[in-house]
Amino acid sequence: MILRYSRKEMTQIWSQENKYQIWFDIEIYALEALEELKIAPLKTAQRIRENFLKAGGKFDVNRIDEIEKTTKHDVIAFLTHLAEITGENSRFIHYGMTSSDVLDTCLSYQLNQSCDLLITDLENLLKVLKARAFEHKYTICVGRSHGIHAEPTTFGLKLARFYAEFSRNLKRLKEVKKEIAVCAISGAVGTHANVNPKVQEYVAKKLQLSEETTSSQIIPRDRHAMFFAVLGIIASSIENIAVEIRHLQRSEVLEVEEFFSTGQKGSSAMPHKRNPVLSENLTGLARMIRSYVNPAMENIALWHERDISHSAVERMIAPDSCIILDFALARLTNLLENLLVYPQNMQKNLDKLGGLVFSQRVLLTLIEEAEVSREEAYKIVQENAMKIWHNQANNFLELLKTDPRLTNKISNKKLSELFDLSYHTKHVDDIFNKVF
Amino acid sequence: MILRYSRKEMTQIWSQENKYQIWFDIEIYALEALEELKIAPLKTAQRIRENFLKAGGKFDVNRIDEIEKTTKHDVIAFLTHLAEITGENSRFIHYGMTSSDVLDTCLSYQLNQSCDLLITDLENLLKVLKARAFEHKYTICVGRSHGIHAEPTTFGLKLARFYAEFSRNLKRLKEVKKEIAVCAISGAVGTHANVNPKVQEYVAKKLQLSEETTSSQIIPRDRHAMFFAVLGIIASSIENIAVEIRHLQRSEVLEVEEFFSTGQKGSSAMPHKRNPVLSENLTGLARMIRSYVNPAMENIALWHERDISHSAVERMIAPDSCIILDFALARLTNLLENLLVYPQNMQKNLDKLGGLVFSQRVLLTLIEEAEVSREEAYKIVQENAMKIWHNQANNFLELLKTDPRLTNKISNKKLSELFDLSYHTKHVDDIFNKVF
Amino acid sequence: MILRYSRKEMTQIWSQENKYQIWFDIEIYALEALEELKIAPLKTAQRIRENFLKAGGKFDVNRIDEIEKTTKHDVIAFLTHLAEITGENSRFIHYGMTSSDVLDTCLSYQLNQSCDLLITDLENLLKVLKARAFEHKYTICVGRSHGIHAEPTTFGLKLARFYAEFSRNLKRLKEVKKEIAVCAISGAVGTHANVNPKVQEYVAKKLQLSEETTSSQIIPRDRHAMFFAVLGIIASSIENIAVEIRHLQRSEVLEVEEFFSTGQKGSSAMPHKRNPVLSENLTGLARMIRSYVNPAMENIALWHERDISHSAVERMIAPDSCIILDFALARLTNLLENLLVYPQNMQKNLDKLGGLVFSQRVLLTLIEEAEVSREEAYKIVQENAMKIWHNQANNFLELLKTDPRLTNKISNKKLSELFDLSYHTKHVDDIFNKVF
Amino acid sequence: MILRYSRKEMTQIWSQENKYQIWFDIEIYALEALEELKIAPLKTAQRIRENFLKAGGKFDVNRIDEIEKTTKHDVIAFLTHLAEITGENSRFIHYGMTSSDVLDTCLSYQLNQSCDLLITDLENLLKVLKARAFEHKYTICVGRSHGIHAEPTTFGLKLARFYAEFSRNLKRLKEVKKEIAVCAISGAVGTHANVNPKVQEYVAKKLQLSEETTSSQIIPRDRHAMFFAVLGIIASSIENIAVEIRHLQRSEVLEVEEFFSTGQKGSSAMPHKRNPVLSENLTGLARMIRSYVNPAMENIALWHERDISHSAVERMIAPDSCIILDFALARLTNLLENLLVYPQNMQKNLDKLGGLVFSQRVLLTLIEEAEVSREEAYKIVQENAMKIWHNQANNFLELLKTDPRLTNKISNKKLSELFDLSYHTKHVDDIFNKVF
Repeated sequence: MILRYSRKEMTQIWSQENKYQIWFDIEIYALEALEELKIAPLKTAQRIRENFLKAGGKFDVNRIDEIEKTTKHDVIAFLTHLAEITGENSRFIHYGMTSSDVLDTCLSYQLNQSCDLLITDLENLLKVLKARAFEHKYTICVGRSHGIHAEPTTFGLKLARFYAEFSRNLKRLKEVKKEIAVCAISGAVGTHANVNPKVQEYVAKKLQLSEETTSSQIIPRDRHAMFFAVLGIIASSIENIAVEIRHLQRSEVLEVEEFFSTGQKGSSAMPHKRNPVLSENLTGLARMIRSYVNPAMENIALWHERDISHSAVERMIAPDSCIILDFALARLTNLLENLLVYPQNMQKNLDKLGGLVFSQRVLLTLIEEAEVSREEAYKIVQENAMKIWHNQANNFLELLKTDPRLTNKISNKKLSELFDLSYHTKHVDDIFNKVF
Repeated sequence: MILRYSRKEMTQIWSQENKYQIWFDIEIYALEALEELKIAPLKTAQRIRENFLKAGGKFDVNRIDEIEKTTKHDVIAFLTHLAEITGENSRFIHYGMTSSDVLDTCLSYQLNQSCDLLITDLENLLKVLKARAFEHKYTICVGRSHGIHAEPTTFGLKLARFYAEFSRNLKRLKEVKKEIAVCAISGAVGTHANVNPKVQEYVAKKLQLSEETTSSQIIPRDRHAMFFAVLGIIASSIENIAVEIRHLQRSEVLEVEEFFSTGQKGSSAMPHKRNPVLSENLTGLARMIRSYVNPAMENIALWHERDISHSAVERMIAPDSCIILDFALARLTNLLENLLVYPQNMQKNLDKLGGLVFSQRVLLTLIEEAEVSREEAYKIVQENAMKIWHNQANNFLELLKTDPRLTNKISNKKLSELFDLSYHTKHVDDIFNKVF
Repeated sequence: MILRYSRKEMTQIWSQENKYQIWFDIEIYALEALEELKIAPLKTAQRIRENFLKAGGKFDVNRIDEIEKTTKHDVIAFLTHLAEITGENSRFIHYGMTSSDVLDTCLSYQLNQSCDLLITDLENLLKVLKARAFEHKYTICVGRSHGIHAEPTTFGLKLARFYAEFSRNLKRLKEVKKEIAVCAISGAVGTHANVNPKVQEYVAKKLQLSEETTSSQIIPRDRHAMFFAVLGIIASSIENIAVEIRHLQRSEVLEVEEFFSTGQKGSSAMPHKRNPVLSENLTGLARMIRSYVNPAMENIALWHERDISHSAVERMIAPDSCIILDFALARLTNLLENLLVYPQNMQKNLDKLGGLVFSQRVLLTLIEEAEVSREEAYKIVQENAMKIWHNQANNFLELLKTDPRLTNKISNKKLSELFDLSYHTKHVDDIFNKVF
Repeated sequence: MILRYSRKEMTQIWSQENKYQIWFDIEIYALEALEELKIAPLKTAQRIRENFLKAGGKFDVNRIDEIEKTTKHDVIAFLTHLAEITGENSRFIHYGMTSSDVLDTCLSYQLNQSCDLLITDLENLLKVLKARAFEHKYTICVGRSHGIHAEPTTFGLKLARFYAEFSRNLKRLKEVKKEIAVCAISGAVGTHANVNPKVQEYVAKKLQLSEETTSSQIIPRDRHAMFFAVLGIIASSIENIAVEIRHLQRSEVLEVEEFFSTGQKGSSAMPHKRNPVLSENLTGLARMIRSYVNPAMENIALWHERDISHSAVERMIAPDSCIILDFALARLTNLLENLLVYPQNMQKNLDKLGGLVFSQRVLLTLIEEAEVSREEAYKIVQENAMKIWHNQANNFLELLKTDPRLTNKISNKKLSELFDLSYHTKHVDDIFNKVF
């Protein structure tokens, strides 16, 4: 985790303090269940809570670190510290449980909390995408395939496409939230021999998590891999928008521009620079979040009932992926909200190829109305188009009007009508209706 | 794709022949829609179908390859060949469409077909896992964490865990099937300007695919990335089982063994060898399927409305991932069905540590019944356990009976009762009820 | 491997036929060594060679496949077939060896052969890069950072940069060739117990490979991982050039263009299209070659002296990476050789920002000659530049001439002199001297 | 970066303080070069150094952060702060340079410093591997392929193999150190137009870095990708050893054990546990370091002369990979130094298969001395071996003595002699001579 790419609320979820608080909650809820099961004495949990509050209601992170140096085991260090606080009441804490019951349920809880934030982030992004899509529903620009002008489209359609993509991402995230929001308190090697299934049931309910079907001491890592995979896809979708903006801002295109604030400097050397650095940064962040998917998948294969190789990986990628994605989504939302859009440049660019972008409509008209075969029609139109490419002409319509193969079959008036932008926007409304 | 790791039915889905047949279907259905829209003359589609049947009902793959050498474009080569077959009827084929409409809808269709096979594969695997889980529901074996004996469990519980994991995988695959089973016929840059939305609607219905909300000439690649991610997770789950078998078969453990057929040779040098080579092979195949996830995610970011960088990637990973996963699932199912299980060795291994696997129950009894603090109880039990580790004793129960810190508080009879296997299997039924 | 992205010579290296031939050579050379060691009868190797030639001098791939169905072991199947050909002479074939001795040395040999081809590919690419770099040594174009015009440079400098990058790649490939060109004939678990070290020495010499220091039956996979990593980097460098071309060809830029042949069609729908599809394809191929690096690294960790999980991976990525990279390098070389370069468009684009690209020189002159602080100078130049961005002016030089903060300190003549292209090319020769 | 997996010295290299110090050095050295070139006034650098020392000789990280909030550019923030310290002397600081000149040369310097530490780490590891290899040069243990007993080897040979692997890694690291230890001061888009090549020459010399041949404002990222790839391979080699230890420590094997300190607790639930947690942790850390390779390779392709997408990636993976690898190497060295080795258990395990591990020698003797064909000999030995597998016998030698196919050809005395361990260690010395 680096501060540079983090926001407060998400960072807080992954703080030591939050972790110890959740561990405490899990242990205390488990204890309440043990009281109900008449294993632990009544009111133990309550007494511990009171002791904890008396001791300041916070855990001493340094003291726990110190104990860990001897035990070489973080959960035991925590429990030892808790015993220091609560004395003999601690006897039934962690009764029948393993560290994994605490660690994995805690991780589920933190991932669940993170999902809530990320869902809000996505909803905010969708809101902005929608607003700007409607703002530019009919802002004409050129559609490009392979970086080459293809046919007219609208800037709103671009944004609608991103909206649809992020709607899918929102759905995926909500789906995967269910996958990882699970509680497991099943004890050593997951048999429940030492910890009654009712303990898991009780704790799950209190934490508003669902219960794991069967865990082998740890929650199976296919769930987490699925979570990180979804994050990798969301990140790649962020990159998708970022790359679009970087392209549209390049000097020769300049159809949009990231907001450039007063006092901002684009380059230490060149005072004239205004660079799409936010989008470039998002491209880089996407690479990082994507890179977490493979180790998460490698984590799935266990040695028997459990090994701890996944732990170091998750200590890094769980906070980092959530924190970076939260940051990236917020940055993207902000960027889009403040994005400067230049419709005049869009029109200017669209005109750049002298009308070539209407070539297909000419082709289809030849096929449909002039009864020319597809191959022949293609040849006629392509030959004329190539003259534009070779700078032998610069107005496609005028050029076509000089080709008898066309003029013999299509009137000049008809030909002119084919160069009509509204033809290309006639289904924008249909598409918007489907998307939004 | 390599033959070695392929099965016939899946390979057929990804054959050139199947691809051309699907292209043909898409073009013909689109034509039927154009007829309904009164753009193409009635019965054109029917005539083309007849011509195609007259020409043998199959496409000449070599001829198409030959044409492609000139056009440098595979769909155009196909269309040119189709025109050769059907003459002037071809005029309205591909009308208003782009290659991507054909290619992407075809890919969706093939992925959809593949999903059906993979779903059957998973169902077969689940069937075998379930049967063998029930067969060994109460076959006692040691549960291991960190490769070290932990506590008793049953072999059936191991299999139940894999069953639960693959049930999740089946659910994920069914879910992602919907994501990629989409049809897009939206024409250049996806505006539907040249191809009425009704064409997409018609073709989608005929192919039993859902309609893409909005496509920018191509179907957005977040869908495909999601598909490959799910395959990567399934593959990693296969590895999870494979690693378990490799461990259980190693010479010192020998709790299970892959079936070894008559005439089979384990090693060219050592005639005594019987190796878990199928499981090792599955481990390797999992690495491959996992490796396809990252390029699939890199494919998401487009240059504007479309670029073709994803194409080469998908030409490889789409068939390969489906074919390898199909093969791997079938191999795993077969392996598990014929797996030799050695309960006697399981018992022998369980006894190996002289009863240490019951240490926790002693700990908990000290806490619960002897009112010793957790820390103190842990110390007592650990000190005795370490004597076993250091070969100063080899029977944990007898050793404990000599420690006054225990005998003062727990009777020998009570102590003996703690070393009871049935204590560890008492919730197996609960877990099975949840899983199956 | 798919035919589409393969060339003949490299494909031949990875054919079954070549593999069996190399296996045969290894076995025969080992036999010769055994003859020298007086273990095998003299002239056995020679007799087998004669038998093989009599039998047609080729292996029956189908027959070997058939035998493998029973033995489930490819090397044993091969040896059995060889015994069919050569009868009792075969007694000492494979004496003391394991399959891995054959398989791994064969893989080394194939990788070594592949390296030779790839080295030639790189040398061809470098030749073209150099020629075109010198051709355009002083072809002025704008240098861009963040996609935004920065300062003038030359197209030759771009190519020189790629030349330097591929020179490093050539060096890396030559270095890694040594790493993988190793022979290991060390027998079961690599102790040489059953196969004298002199056998390895003899075979290595015959195959012109170096000897493995110590192998545990297999050649350690860190060597192969290093090989695939270098290929991943070369592929990413290919992508680097491909992305440059895709950018330079986009409609608004059009500084270069991939050669477009007669009869070629850019789009099935839009007859006007000329797309940089080769470069896009190279981008996709790079993703694939890169994706092989991670599984190759996962292959490094063995279970004890050997496991076979790496095998399935290498059966795919070894041929595929070599074949695809060979194809990609050849495609790139061809593409660059025939690349259409448009210097006029380069000049036109350079002029697009009205002279802003000279902003730094104005800044530095203010600092150096007008004794203005860096911060103040930056502010003055940036404020003027922003007027150009905001379309309040379109000629940067003329604008500066109206700002008293400048004109008070720098004469108009001096200012005009700052807008001088030759200032930016004065070190091109120095750089070329370093690179070539 | 997380503290848990970091060591002080490496962390210091990647601290903000060290970074600013290096930036300062680069700027000051550049200034000295400018003085030599008579662009900057003499003694400016000296005056700035004095001002800096007067101001405390340290940079105010918080103040720089504050400035960055306005400039949104970290190098400019630093320069602004430096100007605050040194007043008008700052006029020629950064003269003709871009941020990348500073950032990239600084990164090179930090990577170079990190390499030095990592080289020492590797040397320490090699020292321990060598010592323990010689200690156990003739400690007999079973060699295993596929997890199945193969033939005898020695524990020293295992360690010699790891020594050879890490020797290669050391060589690779030293090689790649040269690749990344480069200085580039080439100004905007790398033309040296505003900053004389002599500045780069001077700074490079002062920092003991080599000069970049040609940079396009930034140092080409193929260099860095190569660095991260080498780190990924070293990490995978660490995993290789870690996996070996995890296997050898598992309860059924117990040939080695990680040192378990007094007070250490293996499990919060099961007091008897002693787990190879360090090795498991190293396995997880290896996954992380490996995961950085792909984003590093994605960083290679630039948009024109520079984009900044690589920056966010490197801000994370550069420190993290170095810090984690440094930690992992030290942990592994320590682990190996203190590793408990149990030769008696090795012998016990070796005996487990009743002598099957000698099967090949029987096979070869049949071939060589009894003139039986390889196929026939294999069949005889395999049939006997299978009886041991099927528990129909438990002493392979005795069993063979009852098979007339053998006894007819080989005397019992001769047969007994084949079961001789020294046969398997006779080349250990040769191998050690090659490795060390």
